[in-house]
Amino acid sequence: MQAWINGQPATSIDVADRGLAYGDGLFETIKVSQGRAALLGRHLERLQEGCQRLMIPCEMQLLRRELDDYMQLIGNGVCKLIVTRGMGQRGYALPQQSVVQRILQASSFPQWPAAYAEQGIALFSCQLRLSQQPKLAGLKHLNRLEQVLARAEWSDSTYAEGALLDEQERVVDGVFSNLFIVQNQRLLTPDLRRCGVAGVMRAELLARAQAAGIEVQVKDIPRSEMLQADEIFTANSLYGIWPVRNYAGRCWAVGKMTRRLQQMIKDLTGE
Amino acid sequence: MQAWINGQPATSIDVADRGLAYGDGLFETIKVSQGRAALLGRHLERLQEGCQRLMIPCEMQLLRRELDDYMQLIGNGVCKLIVTRGMGQRGYALPQQSVVQRILQASSFPQWPAAYAEQGIALFSCQLRLSQQPKLAGLKHLNRLEQVLARAEWSDSTYAEGALLDEQERVVDGVFSNLFIVQNQRLLTPDLRRCGVAGVMRAELLARAQAAGIEVQVKDIPRSEMLQADEIFTANSLYGIWPVRNYAGRCWAVGKMTRRLQQMIKDLTGE
Repeated sequence: MQAWINGQPATSIDVADRGLAYGDGLFETIKVSQGRAALLGRHLERLQEGCQRLMIPCEMQLLRRELDDYMQLIGNGVCKLIVTRGMGQRGYALPQQSVVQRILQASSFPQWPAAYAEQGIALFSCQLRLSQQPKLAGLKHLNRLEQVLARAEWSDSTYAEGALLDEQERVVDGVFSNLFIVQNQRLLTPDLRRCGVAGVMRAELLARAQAAGIEVQVKDIPRSEMLQADEIFTANSLYGIWPVRNYAGRCWAVGKMTRRLQQMIKDLTGE
Repeated sequence: MQAWINGQPATSIDVADRGLAYGDGLFETIKVSQGRAALLGRHLERLQEGCQRLMIPCEMQLLRRELDDYMQLIGNGVCKLIVTRGMGQRGYALPQQSVVQRILQASSFPQWPAAYAEQGIALFSCQLRLSQQPKLAGLKHLNRLEQVLARAEWSDSTYAEGALLDEQERVVDGVFSNLFIVQNQRLLTPDLRRCGVAGVMRAELLARAQAAGIEVQVKDIPRSEMLQADEIFTANSLYGIWPVRNYAGRCWAVGKMTRRLQQMIKDLTGE
């Protein structure tokens, strides 16, 4: 399906757009089922927070209307939304008047093996260490060369995802998902104040687990702690939860908490 | 003047290009005088190193020919060159076959006040601390949100440039230039193994100074050392050298070494 820019069918953007020049923008990858997105509120919240932190004056209500219309056309699949600061004069200074570009693209839903969710995945140990920038941490911005380089570290399809650490050997996230561990019935996930992308499924899982009376904690997690976890899983808004059965030479069985959480979000992952 | 993509006049790129999606590419900003670029060799060397480190299979000879033709058309001004990995399927994994995009854009030469080079500039102290990523350090890649945020810290036109530090309070570079200090007749500039952009004018200055018998050193420079320097200046390939007369509440007169170096690159900065 053709892309839209600012509500109109279009296939290309100006080469002077700051989204291309500097990665000066944000994106969201949204699962669309029957023309709607179950986690739309969280996607738009994160985008709005990103726009505020990057000072991108995006008209959220207009964007919301375009998104609703576009998702109706998609029906079932994935909607990628990119917001850029638009064109600028040469140089890094913010344009006096930004003409923000709202780009919508559709693709079919990825065909991951059902075994990933059912039996778990092997998680690659990435060598790259994420850099730490509190001013960008948590955001799904367009500066993603670290993820490109990390994902290029493995081509063996045995690995469905890779785990990323920071320079202090703390666990941060996956290349395209968030990481969770379970220890003594507690659900833990890394604090993302210094780096990492704060996924919408991560937020949803934390909220639902807490509402169900599960003890949850967001904190720094050294790699050594992850290796001793009772359970490990990855999560994102497209596939839900993948148990980790293999990481850094160690093995895990799919745990009870992981199964319970998969059940808990079945409304988001079922067809 | 119209932009070129892959040697053909064009104004826009596909919204699915990874240059937009991930900042997955590199750029060069080249001063063009009478259809030629004095530092072209250094620009192309840096670009080639960047392509190797990011595994972007750019055809350098083809690019060189397009660039030569385009610069002839520009005559005098600035040529911005962007190389992206091209389109990809959804996701960070490298495409099996990259169709690299070579984008050329022209603009007129910036009209900076002559006083910047003659009497020096006031240098802003940026609050943002650059993150450290050795895998990207030195490259002029398209992930430039840190520079966008740093440049947004000041709007007072008193400041012509801003100085950036890392988390350990070491000096790294300016927002769009490199920094040099002079101490006891020695020319020093920050080591850029962890972060920063290794400018072509920086490389040229180091080479020419060394050839002229000046002692040069590339090393970690704590902010405290910069504040005690005899002379400070910024440098980039468009404007050459701007002496710093004011930084962090301290003042400097334009020093002898700075003047000597300005003379030394007069062939690159004169009209």
